Amino acid sequence: MEPTSPQRACFEAGIKFGSLYHQFAGTPISPDSADSLAHAMAESIENQPHCESVSVGVREEPLADAIADGGAAYTELTGRFLDVSMTIDYEGVVVETSMAMEDGYPLMQVDSVETE
Amino acid sequence: MEPTSPQRACFEAGIKFGSLYHQFAGTPISPDSADSLAHAMAESIENQPHCESVSVGVREEPLADAIADGGAAYTELTGRFLDVSMTIDYEGVVVETSMAMEDGYPLMQVDSVETE
Amino acid sequence: MEPTSPQRACFEAGIKFGSLYHQFAGTPISPDSADSLAHAMAESIENQPHCESVSVGVREEPLADAIADGGAAYTELTGRFLDVSMTIDYEGVVVETSMAMEDGYPLMQVDSVETE
Amino acid sequence: MEPTSPQRACFEAGIKFGSLYHQFAGTPISPDSADSLAHAMAESIENQPHCESVSVGVREEPLADAIADGGAAYTELTGRFLDVSMTIDYEGVVVETSMAMEDGYPLMQVDSVETE
Repeated sequence: MEPTSPQRACFEAGIKFGSLYHQFAGTPISPDSADSLAHAMAESIENQPHCESVSVGVREEPLADAIADGGAAYTELTGRFLDVSMTIDYEGVVVETSMAMEDGYPLMQVDSVETE
Repeated sequence: MEPTSPQRACFEAGIKFGSLYHQFAGTPISPDSADSLAHAMAESIENQPHCESVSVGVREEPLADAIADGGAAYTELTGRFLDVSMTIDYEGVVVETSMAMEDGYPLMQVDSVETE
Repeated sequence: MEPTSPQRACFEAGIKFGSLYHQFAGTPISPDSADSLAHAMAESIENQPHCESVSVGVREEPLADAIADGGAAYTELTGRFLDVSMTIDYEGVVVETSMAMEDGYPLMQVDSVETE
Repeated sequence: MEPTSPQRACFEAGIKFGSLYHQFAGTPISPDSADSLAHAMAESIENQPHCESVSVGVREEPLADAIADGGAAYTELTGRFLDVSMTIDYEGVVVETSMAMEDGYPLMQVDSVETE
């Protein structure tokens, strides 16, 4: 069957999450550089079509723990340092999505789908 | 509203496309190395949850043209060199997706959504 | 032969350039999001060992041209939009490096090597 | 001072290492997909100028351990799963480089510099 608009809207939302994650995973990060990276991640993904807003926060405690465990003053960005939420608006369908840790893995999920 | 299974399936499909694209965009590529990269792209994304199959082909003509235009024997991977199709199976919902060029941009799209 | 300190310093400088380029190539970019991305690129690479300072500027004209040529309000980051310079300090050897366009390709180069 | 040819050769070697690492860090990887990814990494970086050969191996034990620790059948590529060596030939200067684990971090290093 042809996809519906809400299904296409969820596809668009998924694209943005995969893009954000795999564009920036591996970036060197420290407590001092976390804010500029989070800001750039949000602004760059907001450029993508149908992407109304992106919010990226860095979770300070797991970042500090990872740096303490390693032998350097920085580490590489991975999902467990991130809180992400996004709003997608595709042809009047608004999709809210977020990324949260579950069982030690960053789980990307659709929180709600609303048709105006 | 809570998302339905087909909507979640489409979200999963989108994640895979965004991942594939932004993980590998920018990789040095030439006609000789195109096959190994296409193969690795498919196999790596197939690792992701609910991803049944990924097919990646490199479009030889635009790749050769881009190399002829530049001053080097290779170029950087971008969407216009790629043909991609994927099958996602999420809780019995099968989503077929593909990437094709439209107006000079690689457009990722949902081709069909089937509930078993 | 064993490498000398100036040779190791130049190796370190090269690592930073390759990292910066391939971490961020492909990132969605527009005139509005260019500054936050440039800032994050510099701060993230400065985390790496022996990296004293990184300066990243976005060249507005080629970015605007690329967007005008495409069908969207953004494009993907590539070397021809970037001006980069870096200072590496490795065991008292100071290496100055930069990236500039040559024959349509972004050329990374060592500008000077000074031993204190 | 102007850089010497051996110093430029080491800079070139560093670029290749930084490229390889940051292009592919974060790629989904499992024991089944490790070989195709290693092969593509080597072939893609060999495209870069002055890069004579690249060898990439995946260290099976740390990869298996990381997957066993996580909740999924794959993990994300990071330096501790990799053995890499490269030969750079820049204007008759041959540089041998490798990446090995030291203190839990992947350390990229110059092993030798020979002028023909």
